[in-house]
Amino acid sequence: MVVPSQMENAMEIIMFNFHKYAGEKGYLTKDDIKVMMDKEYHEFMKNQKDPLTVDKIMKDLDQTRDGKVDFQGYFSLVAGLTIACNDYYVCHMKPKGRRF
Amino acid sequence: MVVPSQMENAMEIIMFNFHKYAGEKGYLTKDDIKVMMDKEYHEFMKNQKDPLTVDKIMKDLDQTRDGKVDFQGYFSLVAGLTIACNDYYVCHMKPKGRRF
Repeated sequence: MVVPSQMENAMEIIMFNFHKYAGEKGYLTKDDIKVMMDKEYHEFMKNQKDPLTVDKIMKDLDQTRDGKVDFQGYFSLVAGLTIACNDYYVCHMKPKGRRF
Repeated sequence: MVVPSQMENAMEIIMFNFHKYAGEKGYLTKDDIKVMMDKEYHEFMKNQKDPLTVDKIMKDLDQTRDGKVDFQGYFSLVAGLTIACNDYYVCHMKPKGRRF
């Protein structure tokens, strides 16, 4: 029996999270992104002072301006958030050896 | 107490995986990528007929040709692998409702 690695599990979580919010239509609308951000990134959203945070995220992701964000667009959001977390971790935590 | 979501956990796994293989130096060499691919993507690597798979991955990631892959380069590898998995899932599995 093949046991997936932690990385493979993490990739699967990210993959199915898209399908959870995109549903059968296969893409995310601004409303889908709003619901997802509130649910999956609750603390992050709580700290956003700008009420237009989701609008700005949507503008970033929806390159074709058709109101639809596909898997690649969604993954660039996950990338942006993870890279920001890593930058914070490297600047504020890594030298002291404390985990995130 | 703040309980991280599954997505936040997945992002943390991906983040710490980089630091596990990059170590104090903060970047991945070709050797680091070889060790990581063999360990974290064992099945994927087993299915690669091309002995130069890691060389090609390194060439893709190491845009500055200095033999060093930073976190963003690493994340583009994770993105490529996840997008490929999603394409496979959408084509071969999603319609029948079976999970990956």
